[in-house]
Amino acid sequence: MNLHPDFLINRVEEPQDIKGMTIDQLHQLASEMRTLILERTSTIGGHVGPDLGIVELALAYHYVFNSPTDKVIWDISHNSYPHKMLTGRLAGFIDPDHYQDISGFTSPDESDHDFFKIGHTSTSIALAVGEAEARNLKGQTDRKIVAVIGDGSLSGGLAFEGLNNAAKVKGNLIIVVNDNEMSIDENQGGLYQGLKELRDTNGESTNNLFKFMGLDYRYLEAGNDVAALIDTLQDLKDVDHPIVLHIHTTKGLGYEPAIENEYGFHWAKPFDESTGKVKDATPTESYNDAVIDELISQVDHGVKIAAINAAIPGAFGLKRFQAAHPAHYFDVGIAEQVSISAAVGMAEAGIRPVVFQNSTFLPRAYDQLIHDMALNSLPVVMIVTNGTISNNSATHQGTFDISYISSLPNVNYLTPTSVEELVDMLRWALNQHDEPVVLRLPMQPLVHKDVQTDDYDEPTYEIANDGDDVAILAVGGFWELGEQVVEQLKTQLNINATLINPKSVTGLDYDTLHHLPEKHDVVVTLEDGNLSGGFGETIARYFGPSSVKVLSFGAPRVFNDNVPKNVLYNQFHLTPRQIVDRVQQVLYTL
Amino acid sequence: MNLHPDFLINRVEEPQDIKGMTIDQLHQLASEMRTLILERTSTIGGHVGPDLGIVELALAYHYVFNSPTDKVIWDISHNSYPHKMLTGRLAGFIDPDHYQDISGFTSPDESDHDFFKIGHTSTSIALAVGEAEARNLKGQTDRKIVAVIGDGSLSGGLAFEGLNNAAKVKGNLIIVVNDNEMSIDENQGGLYQGLKELRDTNGESTNNLFKFMGLDYRYLEAGNDVAALIDTLQDLKDVDHPIVLHIHTTKGLGYEPAIENEYGFHWAKPFDESTGKVKDATPTESYNDAVIDELISQVDHGVKIAAINAAIPGAFGLKRFQAAHPAHYFDVGIAEQVSISAAVGMAEAGIRPVVFQNSTFLPRAYDQLIHDMALNSLPVVMIVTNGTISNNSATHQGTFDISYISSLPNVNYLTPTSVEELVDMLRWALNQHDEPVVLRLPMQPLVHKDVQTDDYDEPTYEIANDGDDVAILAVGGFWELGEQVVEQLKTQLNINATLINPKSVTGLDYDTLHHLPEKHDVVVTLEDGNLSGGFGETIARYFGPSSVKVLSFGAPRVFNDNVPKNVLYNQFHLTPRQIVDRVQQVLYTL
Repeated sequence: MNLHPDFLINRVEEPQDIKGMTIDQLHQLASEMRTLILERTSTIGGHVGPDLGIVELALAYHYVFNSPTDKVIWDISHNSYPHKMLTGRLAGFIDPDHYQDISGFTSPDESDHDFFKIGHTSTSIALAVGEAEARNLKGQTDRKIVAVIGDGSLSGGLAFEGLNNAAKVKGNLIIVVNDNEMSIDENQGGLYQGLKELRDTNGESTNNLFKFMGLDYRYLEAGNDVAALIDTLQDLKDVDHPIVLHIHTTKGLGYEPAIENEYGFHWAKPFDESTGKVKDATPTESYNDAVIDELISQVDHGVKIAAINAAIPGAFGLKRFQAAHPAHYFDVGIAEQVSISAAVGMAEAGIRPVVFQNSTFLPRAYDQLIHDMALNSLPVVMIVTNGTISNNSATHQGTFDISYISSLPNVNYLTPTSVEELVDMLRWALNQHDEPVVLRLPMQPLVHKDVQTDDYDEPTYEIANDGDDVAILAVGGFWELGEQVVEQLKTQLNINATLINPKSVTGLDYDTLHHLPEKHDVVVTLEDGNLSGGFGETIARYFGPSSVKVLSFGAPRVFNDNVPKNVLYNQFHLTPRQIVDRVQQVLYTL
Repeated sequence: MNLHPDFLINRVEEPQDIKGMTIDQLHQLASEMRTLILERTSTIGGHVGPDLGIVELALAYHYVFNSPTDKVIWDISHNSYPHKMLTGRLAGFIDPDHYQDISGFTSPDESDHDFFKIGHTSTSIALAVGEAEARNLKGQTDRKIVAVIGDGSLSGGLAFEGLNNAAKVKGNLIIVVNDNEMSIDENQGGLYQGLKELRDTNGESTNNLFKFMGLDYRYLEAGNDVAALIDTLQDLKDVDHPIVLHIHTTKGLGYEPAIENEYGFHWAKPFDESTGKVKDATPTESYNDAVIDELISQVDHGVKIAAINAAIPGAFGLKRFQAAHPAHYFDVGIAEQVSISAAVGMAEAGIRPVVFQNSTFLPRAYDQLIHDMALNSLPVVMIVTNGTISNNSATHQGTFDISYISSLPNVNYLTPTSVEELVDMLRWALNQHDEPVVLRLPMQPLVHKDVQTDDYDEPTYEIANDGDDVAILAVGGFWELGEQVVEQLKTQLNINATLINPKSVTGLDYDTLHHLPEKHDVVVTLEDGNLSGGFGETIARYFGPSSVKVLSFGAPRVFNDNVPKNVLYNQFHLTPRQIVDRVQQVLYTL
């Protein structure tokens, strides 16, 4: 049901519908769009501040340019709600029944006005360089290419590589730097001093990163003034060379709670619009809390730890660590590469770095994992979250980590199954000096379980139930699934299966594996991640030359886009019933 | 045998031995060091220009600073020969019997004056940031930290992330920008305009990237004047904040052929020192040539192709393509991330990008492979070289590519076994519109073989020999090894084995695989890369629930450092005899 049939924006079915409007009408649209952003995000959650701050730019862009002949690329595209409202997707914002039809990011599947699926930072300039060079090769000289980058994306190295190559482009290329003085969290690094100097001098400072890199430059202080934006974009529209338009905007504009708490409203769970309070804020015990508690305690006891993250402290509760030990806290900005290399530098110097990473962003630093961390085999500790079969957007899948981490030499990738085991592994990791240790946080509800203090250097599988016929190797967050499969095997096939916690997905406990065939015909692996390159394949290779049958369960090689977990588990045959049915098939063919 | 027992440098056993020397003596050392660089590289090959250009900086550094209490990090460290000569490793440069004892890069295994194994670009500033922050946390305030970056490394995003974080460091941190106006090839991008302006104004230009990013700055034009360098470094040694020292040096200084041909002498095979001519320059037919021929021909016929590389045209013979079709040639500088994202942008716009990558550097762009290329599933074509079990330095292993590429959704990773198949696959890739296609160049001597023009969209294995009992799946460059194993099986076990070319390591030919167990008890996979996450594991997982035995051959999860291939093959059980012995074991236990 359309919540606002009276809104002017109902008349906008495609961008050209705004071209004849007056500035007053555009102001009205802006106000309506803010209402819709807040109604939708307060109901289903989403990005709030970035979208509130960019309403006028989206209006001005579509007023001046001709989409989709002209192309705009929104960096990260978490700020593309206004653009979507103006390009035929209003229902996704004005009708709660259709809120879920529209993804939080640009997607060519949704509209011809979107050119890429984008959810990671700092890619827009590079993509725009490609678009502009392709336009030149095709001789489509009239086509304008615009990249919009902001919200801290400039601190990512890819943005810089993009700027460096943008300077070489012939013909039109407009890079809008949406400067709201913020990253996801506070901006980090020297760069933001230079940007401030440009703002403070109304763009007149002679010290100008963009000009240094060979780009033309224009500054607009009034980045939320739709008339000023239209004037400026009309001025720049036909430039025959690459130019940076640096605009100053207010993140969260039009909603006081989002201005006061820019970090909290960068992305928010459903909230009460009148108070700005998150609806479901019941604090629950978490794996993150256990990690932070342990690290605070270790520093209290004199252990020289550096907690490092790349602009996502909230994903780990790191603000609490920062408050307790500010000198030991490092946020490198949106810049995953430097987070790893700097950690390697610290480890060499005898400080114990603990790097906090999201499985979906960590590939940004894959070469640093290989060449800096693994090759140098220094005792970096890393905490990886979101390594899981995910109900997130396709842009934010975190299912590849077991493959890309466990294939690296020298690295020990530990997979705790309970909070006690997590803390025990973390303590051990902080006190060993031999190797990089990565800890994979379970993404399932908290499990409590007895754990014996262990040395995790050599893989030693824990046999939680010593049974027969079928052995289940349940990795990390899939531990409880393993227990359920054991139950189901008992009920369905009257089998007392063996249940094993491998603890690590790198290295193998050869002794345990060697003896498994004595009592077992089938080995089952369960992992919360991609099968391709995963733990199941490691085990399948080990038993390749033997007569033991191996069944590996996990995710296939696909991207999922906002699919609920229970649907995915069914598709991927990950319910206890499906798993036992498959075991039954294989046992019968023995 | 010491070639120059009369050289002054024989007196330098550790850095402090040069501290009492006169400037004249340092000049003499510089001259001797250049002689040694040329003698060694002309004999066994190596980096020439970068080392010739940095002799004075290495001398000045060790004259002024106290290594290893003070720490210097050489970016890429291919320019660390002078540093090595001054830190106890002279024998590796003055005595041909010991040339091979010393690696081409820094290594803590060799000396306490080296802190990291480094062979990739742009890492030094980030590592130095970590060292400086660790020093601060440990309260070792007297320790100086120096990063030396040059040779185009600044264009890599990680360098920029490092600069941005360097500005936040408290206390001493000196970043020497060794500006020789060159990357591996010509510098690429707008950045180098800004650096030129700084050189042209003796560092006085108010437009200064480093100051923009909050860093102090000093310029020294006389970057090859050891006295001037010593004065400047003594001035800066005790600064209490991060500072950039920008020096202007001459790559190849002291050797005319290296100055005239900076690109050819960045890294050179053994050459005749008197003429500068490479000793073994017999041109041989190559896979690269076939690719370049095909691309030139396609552009000749009007196909809109963009050939993209990240500063390594020589690795693919791309200069020939550039000469033929300059508008279609793109070198993005040392900046792998932008090479992929820009290619994705081009593909979206209907131009067919062909990206040339080295398996050892491609991890720099892993997130762009996932999030930009695979997720958007646009028809980017990529050529990957050096995907192989390698006799290179540990820093330059290229064995991980099958794992990190074949695990990605939507990507088709093709593995040609002959030059004819390579060209056929390339033609197909350029003419399809559905998916990213990656082609893995065989690293073995050229194979000629009949090929039927094929559609490579759905995996269809080629059965080259239809035999019994044992089936060999031989991937790409290991095709001839597969043929040898078939021969050996015939001789040793009188088995007529089936030989299969899988053509692709992504996706499976289910039909062929399904029927294999009818006549075969053992399936053998052969791949020139890491087993962990490799093709062998994919096959092992497929046959996991069946009674077929799978034996996977490839490389274990280790780094190798300059180990000859025949030694590695023996260690990894990759000789035909070792493979057949293993097959025999498994057949006997059936």
